[in-house]
Amino acid sequence: MKKLVIAVVQDKDSSRLSDALVKQNLRATKLASTGSFLKSGNTTFMIGVEEDRVDSVLKLIQDNCRSRKQIMSPITSMGTNAEGYVPYPVEVEVGGATVFVLPVDQFLQF
Amino acid sequence: MKKLVIAVVQDKDSSRLSDALVKQNLRATKLASTGSFLKSGNTTFMIGVEEDRVDSVLKLIQDNCRSRKQIMSPITSMGTNAEGYVPYPVEVEVGGATVFVLPVDQFLQF
Amino acid sequence: MKKLVIAVVQDKDSSRLSDALVKQNLRATKLASTGSFLKSGNTTFMIGVEEDRVDSVLKLIQDNCRSRKQIMSPITSMGTNAEGYVPYPVEVEVGGATVFVLPVDQFLQF
Ligand code: NI
Ligand code: NI
Ligand code: NI
Repeated sequence: MKKLVIAVVQDKDSSRLSDALVKQNLRATKLASTGSFLKSGNTTFMIGVEEDRVDSVLKLIQDNCRSRKQIMSPITSMGTNAEGYVPYPVEVEVGGATVFVLPVDQFLQF
Repeated sequence: MKKLVIAVVQDKDSSRLSDALVKQNLRATKLASTGSFLKSGNTTFMIGVEEDRVDSVLKLIQDNCRSRKQIMSPITSMGTNAEGYVPYPVEVEVGGATVFVLPVDQFLQF
Repeated sequence: MKKLVIAVVQDKDSSRLSDALVKQNLRATKLASTGSFLKSGNTTFMIGVEEDRVDSVLKLIQDNCRSRKQIMSPITSMGTNAEGYVPYPVEVEVGGATVFVLPVDQFLQF
């Protein structure tokens, strides 16, 4: 039996998750998406997997996308965006993933 | 138990629905989409909700996106598109939503 | 009972599938997507159908998107991309579709 894993992750973590999935030989389809809370862009992954591999896919998503604190230094801020300039390092929350595992009636490849 | 509500709505109603969801503290992921009948752009919302809140989400979608008649005046038509010019007010159908409520095996947030 | 058919197809086959669906009076929503294996763009179709029409939708997808060999002549290659130039005709694999049929708890139209 197949399951369809739908994972919404920050753009920041998207290519890292893609690479990790490819290494495990897992195929994914990516859709550009946005959140209605956070305005920033995110990516929606659709991954079809056998039921017995769902847990390892979930672990892969968690390992590559989990919400974590990151120190943002003044230099970094200046480099990317003048308006975001802060004169001292700050801790910001980045990453995080929202994941749905859906039942699948039929899975086919043509 | 969670459900995944997938709602396809007209771009016209998209930001209003977003605002209404935020007010109810409901998170949504938005995907740009198009219909194969109507060529115009629409937006696909994915909303994860507890089973007992599904009905209120459906009502929210209906309230903000339902198909309705709208009077389109010559001035409006001219302003947006010269080819769409009509010399008298016409009633057009706008809005509408197509909604799927899907069962969810697992819901996780990392 | 409705089912939600999610089909990921190559951009190359997308408009042909759209046309075939319209001819059968089947509504679809299209989302731009990319694969993490093949970098090329693809299109994700979401099609809501009655259970008893699922098989005919699957056949339609297979007929219009199935993986097949195509002869790519030097002329064609030169015309589209100088780097892809090959001095003799080559056989390449094009098309293919990945399809999920999902159970639906509720289907509504507003
Ligand atoms: Ni299986
Ligand atoms: Ni629950
Ligand atoms: Ni039915």
